[in-house]
Amino acid sequence: MKDNLFALKKLKQAKTWVREAGAFLRDNIHQTLEVSQKSNFSDLVTNFDHQVQEIIIEEISRSYPEDKILAEEAGRNTADFDRSQANFWVLDPIDGTINFVVQQDNFAVMLAYYEKGQPQFGLILDVMADKLYWNNAQEVFCNDRLLSYKPQVFEKSLLSINSMIYRKNLYNLTNFSLNTLGVRMLGSAGIAYADLLEGKTVAYFSRLQPWDYAAGGILTEKLGFVTKTFEGEKPNLTDRQYVYSLPAHLVEQLIQGTDIIL
Amino acid sequence: MKDNLFALKKLKQAKTWVREAGAFLRDNIHQTLEVSQKSNFSDLVTNFDHQVQEIIIEEISRSYPEDKILAEEAGRNTADFDRSQANFWVLDPIDGTINFVVQQDNFAVMLAYYEKGQPQFGLILDVMADKLYWNNAQEVFCNDRLLSYKPQVFEKSLLSINSMIYRKNLYNLTNFSLNTLGVRMLGSAGIAYADLLEGKTVAYFSRLQPWDYAAGGILTEKLGFVTKTFEGEKPNLTDRQYVYSLPAHLVEQLIQGTDIIL
Repeated sequence: MKDNLFALKKLKQAKTWVREAGAFLRDNIHQTLEVSQKSNFSDLVTNFDHQVQEIIIEEISRSYPEDKILAEEAGRNTADFDRSQANFWVLDPIDGTINFVVQQDNFAVMLAYYEKGQPQFGLILDVMADKLYWNNAQEVFCNDRLLSYKPQVFEKSLLSINSMIYRKNLYNLTNFSLNTLGVRMLGSAGIAYADLLEGKTVAYFSRLQPWDYAAGGILTEKLGFVTKTFEGEKPNLTDRQYVYSLPAHLVEQLIQGTDIIL
Repeated sequence: MKDNLFALKKLKQAKTWVREAGAFLRDNIHQTLEVSQKSNFSDLVTNFDHQVQEIIIEEISRSYPEDKILAEEAGRNTADFDRSQANFWVLDPIDGTINFVVQQDNFAVMLAYYEKGQPQFGLILDVMADKLYWNNAQEVFCNDRLLSYKPQVFEKSLLSINSMIYRKNLYNLTNFSLNTLGVRMLGSAGIAYADLLEGKTVAYFSRLQPWDYAAGGILTEKLGFVTKTFEGEKPNLTDRQYVYSLPAHLVEQLIQGTDIIL
């Protein structure tokens, strides 16, 4: 990883910004319930999403006005830069918006940073649990706790899977899942990636936007996972794609049971 | 509720027993991982299940030798008593055994008590979160926090559903779920009932044994839920049955969209 010191400075700042966004959401979440009974559901989510996005984008732009930003809510710099060359950030201000409104739990703030097109760090904040997953050049942490990959065998593990994929047996994944101990559906990519990092599930299959997999892809890669599209490609950080993340040593075993391309 | 004072004494004892069982599991859970890498998976679960069951059955039998006990692990008094007349306990020592072994999280200890066939109280301990859900004659609590039913509309809510039911669209429930904001699958009846009590989901559909729904059925009933079989009957506390729990005021709306019998 080049420019190590510089990335570390950005990492330190990014952790502060994400934690501040989380504190803002925790402080204001109970107004959610009250408002949601009176007004429009979608407006409410959009409102919180926008506020968190503005907080973080403002910080990035102030410190690094030349960096590009890719973010869920349509905004500045959304798509018009070269992902293989740029210094850019990928932001999901509230991942799991349905959980945010209905459950006031199980949602995340996610931020990733790429320098000259190379992944540097990912941040996933499980907001209500106040658990921040982050990585430096070599290691992955949950708050101050160092994480390590716990070797798993497919037959004795659990999968996170998108309900639509499971309902339709896309890529034969539903049949394939019957060879494992089962599936879990949590409604948040961020929480699903946190479960992968904790060893609670062994693989994640979904249909994701760049801001859904950017941070999780970087974090899990540090523990030996790979993130690819169901066509066997590196996700393009542009379109919504079918994406999996699973331990590199299990990829071949996985592919045999599904219609996913190696 | 008759014999109120007597049930309260049993409630107080039962809370102690369940908390002790939870502490035992938390203290010993990390040996799980080590052992599971060496020895048989099923034996391991059975071993912990048996130990917790023995702890609680011993306490019940010492204090109330004439009470009947219905418990997951085949044992004393399992089935041979009149559920409409007896004083009896229903115990699930570890609900969510796969989560227990694979995740070391998202599992529960559950205990319910019926006096002269009438439901008195249910206890669900989310072990790793150390959250005890319990009820007295009128109210439901999570630890010391009083819970209340948060009115929900089906279209803006989430469902807990068993993966097999969802995969096979049994009773048309999968199609029906598309009218809601989605489904969540957690792998533990106890945690699913906790989510109902917290208002994180609005309904739970599964195929359950008596020890899976006894405590949750009593607790949710205090908040205005009904628990019935998919044939529209009161569950018989004997067989494994398809069972739902959902707010009484939403039952008719539910039935219209599914093949469940009112």
